[in-house]
Amino acid sequence: MTFLYKAEAARGAEWARLFAEQLPDLAFRQWPDVGDPAEVRYLMAWMPPDDLATRFPNLEVLFSVGAGVDQFDVTALPPDLPVVRMLDPSIADGMVEYVTLATLSLHRNLIDYLDQQRAKVWTQIRLRPATKRRVGVLGLGVLGTAVLDRLRGFGFDCAGWSRSPRALDGVRTFAGADELPEFLARSDILICLLPLTDETRGILNRDLFAQLPDGAALVNTGRGGHLVEADLLAALDGGRLSAAVLDVAEQEPPPPDHPFWTHPRIILTPHIASMTQPESAFAILLDNLQRHRAGEPMRGLIDRTRGY
Amino acid sequence: MTFLYKAEAARGAEWARLFAEQLPDLAFRQWPDVGDPAEVRYLMAWMPPDDLATRFPNLEVLFSVGAGVDQFDVTALPPDLPVVRMLDPSIADGMVEYVTLATLSLHRNLIDYLDQQRAKVWTQIRLRPATKRRVGVLGLGVLGTAVLDRLRGFGFDCAGWSRSPRALDGVRTFAGADELPEFLARSDILICLLPLTDETRGILNRDLFAQLPDGAALVNTGRGGHLVEADLLAALDGGRLSAAVLDVAEQEPPPPDHPFWTHPRIILTPHIASMTQPESAFAILLDNLQRHRAGEPMRGLIDRTRGY
Repeated sequence: MTFLYKAEAARGAEWARLFAEQLPDLAFRQWPDVGDPAEVRYLMAWMPPDDLATRFPNLEVLFSVGAGVDQFDVTALPPDLPVVRMLDPSIADGMVEYVTLATLSLHRNLIDYLDQQRAKVWTQIRLRPATKRRVGVLGLGVLGTAVLDRLRGFGFDCAGWSRSPRALDGVRTFAGADELPEFLARSDILICLLPLTDETRGILNRDLFAQLPDGAALVNTGRGGHLVEADLLAALDGGRLSAAVLDVAEQEPPPPDHPFWTHPRIILTPHIASMTQPESAFAILLDNLQRHRAGEPMRGLIDRTRGY
Repeated sequence: MTFLYKAEAARGAEWARLFAEQLPDLAFRQWPDVGDPAEVRYLMAWMPPDDLATRFPNLEVLFSVGAGVDQFDVTALPPDLPVVRMLDPSIADGMVEYVTLATLSLHRNLIDYLDQQRAKVWTQIRLRPATKRRVGVLGLGVLGTAVLDRLRGFGFDCAGWSRSPRALDGVRTFAGADELPEFLARSDILICLLPLTDETRGILNRDLFAQLPDGAALVNTGRGGHLVEADLLAALDGGRLSAAVLDVAEQEPPPPDHPFWTHPRIILTPHIASMTQPESAFAILLDNLQRHRAGEPMRGLIDRTRGY
């Protein structure tokens, strides 16, 4: 019985160590060293091989190394194969850190001050109290909820939007297409933490930007596919939006001539907002393997009809 | 009876409005329009005039517009004149925002990622969990305590140092010269929030940097006088320290040829970490004026022997 890992090699070595220490009965192998394909019962991958079903006839579960599964072509997967996303709590910790950093950067005019430093200018920009800065989070899953909880502590005027209604402590929530305009109209800083589905692809577009307050700013820590990149550039250049912090792009890395690299109002980071930490992720995986063997529902199991 | 304001003019206009609305009986004047000098009972200033005692013979209280009074030459002030610093809670809010922004920037390698963006490089730097990042705050007054409380929420391994012993919830504290080395040896990110006194002037120097862990980083939101600037530059260039976020400088603004403007491992901002907000500061001032008239001790009264 083999547990096969197919993702970043350096982190794979840490998984190997954790398996050897804590689950020595289950053979851990790292792609491309698959051993006997018939022995592969579990696959943990960022991107599974195309011929998954024929190559591993006895595969029982596909685990994503990430919090999302949108990188998988779900239609190409065997319909009965359980697909599980990673609910590692350190993913939320990293995301909360990154989004707080991005939000405070925008709130405290960091892009302007970095420009001033380069130009040797020493001018104070009037500080807006956090209570007068309206922050809006798109997506109220584990990550969106954790982010709002932290941002609320700074006194930001926080709201959240999700597809179906959700109640959150101390945060005004909006739901569905009907309430989206009202939510957007009060989001000075808009943060995208949505899952990428057919419904949310391209949601950050010209129409949406037009509904934000003048000079609003964007943080995209969802997926590159959420954003219509040309629309963002037009909104920044036309002054509709004032700045953006982006951790994702349609193509990663973006090609060398992509405007995101050089745009003066964009901070671009290489998909680092949150990363699975093998130590904490292993505990989650172990729990799911035990649940699977006991016939209990695994945590993070994907609902194929919703896509997340 | 006149309340005289001598500081930034734009904020002075807001003070004037608040006085007119809430304390119309007390004549508010803005420097240099002092009126009859004998009428001046209260002076609120960033920098008082040199001839304070002779110019305003009936002055009863000197209020600082800032959280500190180190910009005053205390020896030149009449010894019996009460000197009061500003305890506006919005000063702590701004400081917590700024220090969190600075700490997360260092923790999440923002300087490196900004460099990568300029160089069109898309490389992930391995993320260190906050629990493995040791943050140390020098100074455990209102600001240091508020900052530690917020940073603790991110899971950072936090400690604090002050001159005399202080106990803080969930934070290991160190006190006095004896315990400073042990505190420094466990500070990956060192944050200076000390008052500037004869004792703390130049405390951030080569000797102190030598006691920090390899590759430690510095946040200075105290005063420029805390830092021996040449020692910081040597520590950064020699690799002893990895980066610094500075909101203050010995001379503000620094001269055009000052290395802080262009150093690749320094983020420099123009003394913007926290600013008094007239709305909330006015409530504090009003309370102090009432206390003064009633002969009760004012909040934020300076102990001339300690200097803060």
